[in-house]
Amino acid sequence: MEFNKITPDFLTLLTEATGAANIFVDQETLATYAHDETEDLTYYPEVVVKPLDAEGVSAILKLCNQYHVPVTPRGGGTGLSGAALPIYGGVLLSMEKFKAILSIDTENLQSTVEPGVITEEFINAVAEKGLLYPVDPSSKGSCFIGGNVAHGSGGPRVVKYGTIREYILNLEVVLPTGEIIWTGANTLKYASGYNLTQLMIGSEGTLGVVTKIVTKLIPKSQYNVLMLGSFSTNENACAAVSAIFRAGVTPSALEFMERKGVEWVIKFDDIKFDLKDDVNAFLMIEFDGDDMDVIFKDAEKVNSVLEEFNCSEVLFADTAQQKEEIWKMRRTMAESVKSNSVYKEEDTVVPRAALPQLINGIKEIGARYGFESVCYGHAGDGNLHINIIKAGMSDEDWLSELKKGIAEIFELTTVLGGTISGEHGIGLVQKEFMSIKYSEINLNLMRGIKKVFDPNGILNPGKIF
Amino acid sequence: MEFNKITPDFLTLLTEATGAANIFVDQETLATYAHDETEDLTYYPEVVVKPLDAEGVSAILKLCNQYHVPVTPRGGGTGLSGAALPIYGGVLLSMEKFKAILSIDTENLQSTVEPGVITEEFINAVAEKGLLYPVDPSSKGSCFIGGNVAHGSGGPRVVKYGTIREYILNLEVVLPTGEIIWTGANTLKYASGYNLTQLMIGSEGTLGVVTKIVTKLIPKSQYNVLMLGSFSTNENACAAVSAIFRAGVTPSALEFMERKGVEWVIKFDDIKFDLKDDVNAFLMIEFDGDDMDVIFKDAEKVNSVLEEFNCSEVLFADTAQQKEEIWKMRRTMAESVKSNSVYKEEDTVVPRAALPQLINGIKEIGARYGFESVCYGHAGDGNLHINIIKAGMSDEDWLSELKKGIAEIFELTTVLGGTISGEHGIGLVQKEFMSIKYSEINLNLMRGIKKVFDPNGILNPGKIF
Repeated sequence: MEFNKITPDFLTLLTEATGAANIFVDQETLATYAHDETEDLTYYPEVVVKPLDAEGVSAILKLCNQYHVPVTPRGGGTGLSGAALPIYGGVLLSMEKFKAILSIDTENLQSTVEPGVITEEFINAVAEKGLLYPVDPSSKGSCFIGGNVAHGSGGPRVVKYGTIREYILNLEVVLPTGEIIWTGANTLKYASGYNLTQLMIGSEGTLGVVTKIVTKLIPKSQYNVLMLGSFSTNENACAAVSAIFRAGVTPSALEFMERKGVEWVIKFDDIKFDLKDDVNAFLMIEFDGDDMDVIFKDAEKVNSVLEEFNCSEVLFADTAQQKEEIWKMRRTMAESVKSNSVYKEEDTVVPRAALPQLINGIKEIGARYGFESVCYGHAGDGNLHINIIKAGMSDEDWLSELKKGIAEIFELTTVLGGTISGEHGIGLVQKEFMSIKYSEINLNLMRGIKKVFDPNGILNPGKIF
Repeated sequence: MEFNKITPDFLTLLTEATGAANIFVDQETLATYAHDETEDLTYYPEVVVKPLDAEGVSAILKLCNQYHVPVTPRGGGTGLSGAALPIYGGVLLSMEKFKAILSIDTENLQSTVEPGVITEEFINAVAEKGLLYPVDPSSKGSCFIGGNVAHGSGGPRVVKYGTIREYILNLEVVLPTGEIIWTGANTLKYASGYNLTQLMIGSEGTLGVVTKIVTKLIPKSQYNVLMLGSFSTNENACAAVSAIFRAGVTPSALEFMERKGVEWVIKFDDIKFDLKDDVNAFLMIEFDGDDMDVIFKDAEKVNSVLEEFNCSEVLFADTAQQKEEIWKMRRTMAESVKSNSVYKEEDTVVPRAALPQLINGIKEIGARYGFESVCYGHAGDGNLHINIIKAGMSDEDWLSELKKGIAEIFELTTVLGGTISGEHGIGLVQKEFMSIKYSEINLNLMRGIKKVFDPNGILNPGKIF
């Protein structure tokens, strides 16, 4: 792609448009925004801009569109697919000053929130009103709700409550050409033309910059129970997953963890956990609701299912502290692996009954290519995160051969009816694998849509396709 | 728009492509497909084609695209916005031969189904396996699941279970240019580029022709209870709606009915119902679940809420027959009005706490323009169907003045944060009102997307925008 470099003249225009206090060109700031949480990738922007409102975003985009300068929007910088990396330099548009929860409407069970609000802070704010916003990715303590919209985020509660798609009613968006629109209506239903709200969700900041978000909220359950089931094989644990749903039960979370992940967390995160020798896989199963009898009935049903799959032990976490420790184990797993090994993360998703085939396939492919892997994730959705560990692989193989192995994993997910990413997105690092799952016709439709929104291709170029 | 008329030569090509047995040009068939359920509108197609499979659809679309002949896809013909009317003549593409339920996968709780399956038949087929497909519009006995996808359909159970958007995982689609694609993956999550599945849903047959549908299924509840609350005013009934949710309860249906609608049904549909003099509005509230104690607790909570809003009587329907009678009253209301009066139907939707303002506004606007109205609908979603009755309005006013009144109603929904249609779609008859809610920028984005999918504009032209 052909873009213009940022000149002193352009910088002057940008400063006039957005205010000197919101523009940064010092090396330290540029370095901070040169990476997200994706592997060890680094791309420096030429300037970092931190607008204060939609009009500010509009002024920046108009200017960049006119001068063909690339713009990369960025939320909390916790992405795992490189969608926030400014790979062509240009303007890094940080949404960190969009920090307001504008309203929590307890009459309509809706909220209007700015995209720079940290997800966990939003969850806590609505919880204080007895309400639930159930989209809580592992990075909830630092990711932004705007980034969640851009990635179509999920998290452990999708299995009962659905992804962010089901909680976003309407978006204020600044288009790459600078116009400001609302995509839909503040309603639970919408049949008024193409659903631009749904199109924006998961578009990874390539179609527009979200500046306000109207969410749906739901009543918060009073109680929850957490079970941890231990299995001697990955396959048994994975096979139990779809059986749980067939028993007519819908847990509020159903997570898989491989032994190696648990070992790693215990070793590096100082978590106390008695890891038995014969245990190789875990299922975390959470139920929530307003009636403990119902929760216990469901838990009993699941207990019977787990027995059928040779579950050796079921731990019932009944104190808040015990629950928090188990959840912490699951939530910090990615960071633990990442901070202790060269790794790559994949975000495979398949129909849930195909999980045993997926995990066996991953291990078999790994054995052939010489990589190890730690698998865990939202098993209830068929969504398995794979942390590929460099281990004994040579640097050369890591750079070249590994890609073939990853391609094989995605070919497997495709054969199983799945796709390349369930919630992390395509961004930069999965782009080259898109053609495994999607035809050139699909990709051309996406490219065509991109061109409708962004005729000059300035917004987050080089991502997805 | 400039389209070519169908010539004998073109008809020969069409016959070669799709087989003589599937093509109809007789006057009787053309007349049957010249209308749907939208008012008394009639537009004759030049030819009706009933393809048997995706390849057949592809052959037809390729030919029509090449010769610039308009194609109007049609499901069950139950639409209320005129989306299936062949307003430019050309080819009427009936999907009625796509009748197969291809699989009900009880391992993954998914189904693959053809678009010509009648919604109720699909619901019954999955119910036999103990599963629920909760999208059941009032027309479920005759509408097609493909039409439901095209319109983003809802129905009474949206309030607990969500619209069809939450149940469609993947679609096989024939593009207007004839290519056949799958839009996504058979997974509960998807973060792999723009969500073409969600874009197709609600696009009213303007972007492609759906030929296979992969749905999500969920466990079916064992029990349900239905309450019918009577109110002296519309406003009280409507105000109770959002209070029910604020009490932490989520019913499986929450329907509003105005007295006049009930009167009409009693009169014309031979339904036995003791309509008290002082009752002017009703709320139907249904709960479902696997535990009767929980259901009764919720029903009690709702009972207390209803009392606060001066509900004069609550009827608990406890036999299957009693429930069915009340549901029949609600379901046949539209037909009853339609078959007994010249009418127009609007499908307003607002945030649910705004329902009292909406219904009062409708009546006030009606009083100024001289039209009567019967209102009912999915109050739990803030979705109110308005049947506008010609009553004493002159023919001239009905044709000219009424539009101004309808425009005022849509201006009101817009002010209240709502939109023009919650589940019926825009089609032909709401098209002129789109600019009340959506900016020209929004509409141009939609037109741009249309052009990406359908460069020659042959597929269902003249609809939505």
